[in-house]
Amino acid sequence: MAPFQTTRRIEFRDTDAAGIVHFSVFFAFMESAEHELLRHVGLSVVSNAEGRVVSWPRVAARCDYREAIRFEDQVAIDVRVERLGNKSITYAFRFHCDGATIAEGSMTSVCCELPRGRDGEWIKPVPIEIPPDFRRKLQPYSG
Amino acid sequence: MAPFQTTRRIEFRDTDAAGIVHFSVFFAFMESAEHELLRHVGLSVVSNAEGRVVSWPRVAARCDYREAIRFEDQVAIDVRVERLGNKSITYAFRFHCDGATIAEGSMTSVCCELPRGRDGEWIKPVPIEIPPDFRRKLQPYSG
Amino acid sequence: MAPFQTTRRIEFRDTDAAGIVHFSVFFAFMESAEHELLRHVGLSVVSNAEGRVVSWPRVAARCDYREAIRFEDQVAIDVRVERLGNKSITYAFRFHCDGATIAEGSMTSVCCELPRGRDGEWIKPVPIEIPPDFRRKLQPYSG
Amino acid sequence: MAPFQTTRRIEFRDTDAAGIVHFSVFFAFMESAEHELLRHVGLSVVSNAEGRVVSWPRVAARCDYREAIRFEDQVAIDVRVERLGNKSITYAFRFHCDGATIAEGSMTSVCCELPRGRDGEWIKPVPIEIPPDFRRKLQPYSG
Repeated sequence: MAPFQTTRRIEFRDTDAAGIVHFSVFFAFMESAEHELLRHVGLSVVSNAEGRVVSWPRVAARCDYREAIRFEDQVAIDVRVERLGNKSITYAFRFHCDGATIAEGSMTSVCCELPRGRDGEWIKPVPIEIPPDFRRKLQPYSG
Repeated sequence: MAPFQTTRRIEFRDTDAAGIVHFSVFFAFMESAEHELLRHVGLSVVSNAEGRVVSWPRVAARCDYREAIRFEDQVAIDVRVERLGNKSITYAFRFHCDGATIAEGSMTSVCCELPRGRDGEWIKPVPIEIPPDFRRKLQPYSG
Repeated sequence: MAPFQTTRRIEFRDTDAAGIVHFSVFFAFMESAEHELLRHVGLSVVSNAEGRVVSWPRVAARCDYREAIRFEDQVAIDVRVERLGNKSITYAFRFHCDGATIAEGSMTSVCCELPRGRDGEWIKPVPIEIPPDFRRKLQPYSG
Repeated sequence: MAPFQTTRRIEFRDTDAAGIVHFSVFFAFMESAEHELLRHVGLSVVSNAEGRVVSWPRVAARCDYREAIRFEDQVAIDVRVERLGNKSITYAFRFHCDGATIAEGSMTSVCCELPRGRDGEWIKPVPIEIPPDFRRKLQPYSG
């Protein structure tokens, strides 16, 4: 199936003194693309189901860089669900401009309940099984 | 009295495609300098006094830029308390390198209690009088 | 005349541990809105006219904050040309959500030629008069 | 041999609305640690040798996250040269706090000459062999 696709235009704040997009910014772009996919299928990265806050802390991220991109370039980002596990999801991303691959990356997030402490602050996340609703809506972008 | 002074070395992430520190980054530097001053006098920007969370949302920030700074430059930042009001503080900052003024800015923060809602989330801050402890410890950097 | 208007959705990278958009990020948003206005009228913040590189270093920026905004909020940004001087432009910005003003700010940029040094690197900007083309295209957003 | 070690205190700008350091920021921290190591041995990430500009574009970066860190935490970063190739270097990083591993990552950079175009702008980097001086100074952190 076709991946989910989004585009973004490079802002000046995303560039560095080498005149190109700073390599760390690709990770923020991946995250935004993930969130767009979730919104697109009617989900959110933080959900409040039956009084439980469920979110997706990352456990791994990587990116391989092929070409540089610059201020005002428009870049397309393809998102696929590379692996839909019991408690984790790995997303794969391809950045491309005019057909040329700019970068390829992936991120793995674990489905967690975020319990609150006595003062209402969030405490250590507890991994849980991915809710069926989530799984069903992401299935089409998988494999 | 002498201002509080801190220094920092410019990281690559702080630069932009013009080859200089991005203008928005000076505001993050001011904030860090403010937090260093608070730590220096034994305070914190978020405190938990008698079960109440007290913090300092900003209501205003400004900066005038005179010279550019670049990757690996070392910049000194002077912090003064420009105004110590009943419920707000205005900090003034001077960035300088080798005697030359790079930028001058200020930030105004309001002392607020941060109540928590039913689910433990923070809700709208409520301005309160600056606690005496805070006032006493910042007085020496004032005027 | 009506201001130029753009919108953006808050990304996770724009938030901080207070759960809201970091105050320094409003400045990056102002800059992006300025660049969108320039593109909208067929200009660019860096132009290469008759072999001369012309750009717009900032000399001042300020922002007043009224309300907080959060992850996934959609915010509208109005841009006006507050002052169109001989060598500088001051832009005024209003951030709003559902009719409520979130923040108001301004930025002053000076029109400069960027000469290159012997090794091709950019050297100290030299203020110049705003080119007639630039002035004519921004006039409608002025006053 | 012992790795190179540096420390940093988490700034507010590095946090996100989950109350922790944003995952993309670890990459900027790795880069800064790399640059500190280079300065420590008398090198720079951008050097000008015999009229040639030599720099180190990244081709890959990855990070595995174990624990979250928060505002004002102090984190130690160990840097090792994991692989010293003919034209590329892979650095390995370990972030730790009070003995506990927070994250582990790596970055691969390719030694490149950056030629300038006719207008002095940087054009596509050309991979070159790592200069002997560079190799000799980093050898002690290798293996």
